[in-house]
Amino acid sequence: MVQRFVERWETTHADGEVLHRDVGIESPPAVGEPWIAAAYSEPNKHDDRMREAIAVSDELIDELLAADAVVIGAPIYNFGMPAQLKAWIDQIIRVGRTFDIDPGRENPYVPLAGERPVTVLVSAGDIELHPGGTLASLNHMEPHLRTVLGFIGMTEVRFIRIGNEEFADARHQESVEAAMAEIDAIAASLPTEV
Amino acid sequence: MVQRFVERWETTHADGEVLHRDVGIESPPAVGEPWIAAAYSEPNKHDDRMREAIAVSDELIDELLAADAVVIGAPIYNFGMPAQLKAWIDQIIRVGRTFDIDPGRENPYVPLAGERPVTVLVSAGDIELHPGGTLASLNHMEPHLRTVLGFIGMTEVRFIRIGNEEFADARHQESVEAAMAEIDAIAASLPTEV
Repeated sequence: MVQRFVERWETTHADGEVLHRDVGIESPPAVGEPWIAAAYSEPNKHDDRMREAIAVSDELIDELLAADAVVIGAPIYNFGMPAQLKAWIDQIIRVGRTFDIDPGRENPYVPLAGERPVTVLVSAGDIELHPGGTLASLNHMEPHLRTVLGFIGMTEVRFIRIGNEEFADARHQESVEAAMAEIDAIAASLPTEV
Repeated sequence: MVQRFVERWETTHADGEVLHRDVGIESPPAVGEPWIAAAYSEPNKHDDRMREAIAVSDELIDELLAADAVVIGAPIYNFGMPAQLKAWIDQIIRVGRTFDIDPGRENPYVPLAGERPVTVLVSAGDIELHPGGTLASLNHMEPHLRTVLGFIGMTEVRFIRIGNEEFADARHQESVEAAMAEIDAIAASLPTEV
């Protein structure tokens, strides 16, 4: 789905640039103690482990902030996002870079990432996990992604869904065709850098 | 919190055994293509990569199924479970081992893990993420954990919560004291193997 999206977008954005980051194949490291210690301290206090941990975050955040639009391909694994995608999320949600804390405010969290359209291409083993399906209340990925992206300031999130890979049947084919039409429409409407 | 829980449990379960699995320090590998291919095929069709991937899952599932009770220490990272904990979840939710698919049933999913009490010790940077707090609707970890554990048959899930590490103040101290009292009560009430 991501490939189709990018191809479609490239035909309508001749000058655009696409940066691929396949966290499914190469997962960012999970955030641990050195990362957290680094995120909440000044760079001149960092030791080597902290510097190494936070450098990954810097790279992923720089990529994100440079983009005019973001496309995320996200299979639902066990009712939520894959561990790899959560590892990416945990790398890019960072105090001082994508949000700030102002304890004097009633809501102390200040988004810093800035708005840019996000399109999430969701695939589900069981189509019933999508909105309107009998298992929709068990889909914890979409609300979670909306929350974390909104937290850093990206509130314009659209989901394109395909499903039923587990039960490869007519419903699967229908969902793929509907998703492709949506992909074509959204990709053509986006700004220039993805 | 987990340490307190285990100590308390050991004082009331002299013959009990405790198995520690710290996925925060040593994250299980994220589930990828070889894992999925292995999970949905017969062992005699597996190549080396598939065997290696699924061996991790076998070990973690064997541990889980041998336990009479489960205690999970889970910080909320960015409104959901840490990537490391999701990696563990993705390893233990497995067709033929902890659930089955029966396409002939209206609900095709059959839990296989069996019931055992699960206690989740939840810490949150902001106490308002806990039920009743102003940010409770953004806490996607608890409902997600309930869903995935219930999916394999573990529906008896209790949460003990502490919060406000980010704003270390009286509310943080109060939440720690309340959690410790709960931990003592629940640990004493559990069956013998944790």
